[in-house]
Amino acid sequence: MTDVKELLLSRIRDVADYPEPGVLFKDITPLLADPAAFTALTDALAELTVRHGATKIVGLEARGFILGAPAAVRAGVGFIPVRKAGKLPGATLSQTYDLEYGSAEIEVHAEDLAAGDRVMVIDDVLATGGTAEASLQLIRRAGAEVAGVAVLMELSFLPGRRRLESALAGAPLEALITV
Amino acid sequence: MTDVKELLLSRIRDVADYPEPGVLFKDITPLLADPAAFTALTDALAELTVRHGATKIVGLEARGFILGAPAAVRAGVGFIPVRKAGKLPGATLSQTYDLEYGSAEIEVHAEDLAAGDRVMVIDDVLATGGTAEASLQLIRRAGAEVAGVAVLMELSFLPGRRRLESALAGAPLEALITV
Repeated sequence: MTDVKELLLSRIRDVADYPEPGVLFKDITPLLADPAAFTALTDALAELTVRHGATKIVGLEARGFILGAPAAVRAGVGFIPVRKAGKLPGATLSQTYDLEYGSAEIEVHAEDLAAGDRVMVIDDVLATGGTAEASLQLIRRAGAEVAGVAVLMELSFLPGRRRLESALAGAPLEALITV
Repeated sequence: MTDVKELLLSRIRDVADYPEPGVLFKDITPLLADPAAFTALTDALAELTVRHGATKIVGLEARGFILGAPAAVRAGVGFIPVRKAGKLPGATLSQTYDLEYGSAEIEVHAEDLAAGDRVMVIDDVLATGGTAEASLQLIRRAGAEVAGVAVLMELSFLPGRRRLESALAGAPLEALITV
């Protein structure tokens, strides 16, 4: 696993001043372009999904789609997209959450989650944790169980882990890499 | 393959009046939630990727991410996201294209495509073909070769195939299902 972490870390690129001056953005696109690294990432996320007994993966728009969909296929579980408001055509549950300035809203198809489902939430980066927290609230409101949250990378200088603590209610937060 | 097509078709849901009154939207989320169907779809797209000698898959934001990323992992080729303008952190090539009212712009990281690459473009639905055409223009401007376009579903009552003809320049347009 150490070799995998080193491989993954070596394929993440720092981009200065994106999306705004002073921010050092972690760009995962070099990892996606490298088949060996993307396969190792997919295997690791699928292994966590199976280990924690998840029956479905929720991927958070948009980079969580790129990581969550292959993991779902590899693990043999259903893939459920959680999208920004207005992007899903069917009847939805929606959840508003706070941003630094203002708020945002995410949605899931109401029929995609139900009692009996155990759901792993997958995203690329855990930063402030706002979207992940809202997704956990959606899962519980739908009557499903939270199997955990799995991310490629946790930014430990931001309060994401602390923000998720209450919504996780003991379920695991797994980060393949912590920076 | 007939059985695969029937399986895929059976997991696509019609949603009336989305995104606007009078439109019958083809919703692929039931397919994604079904592991057997999503695996069959991934296998079919990966097989097309390999058959046409592609070395990279371009996925078009956002549903093209969900289909293209697992196909790239399965085929063992790199995954390159083509995103709406402003979403990629590095230096980009961008391409504007016409919509029914107004225009839109997509981007790719300039360093992700180069001479020697053969690229398969993957998306969920071919409708008017505007985004797919712009992605083919991006690929050629980067100096790479077009291996083809592969979609889950072609809407044959719309002019997507005709619109792509010139940009494909003889490369194949593969649709697993035509409705």
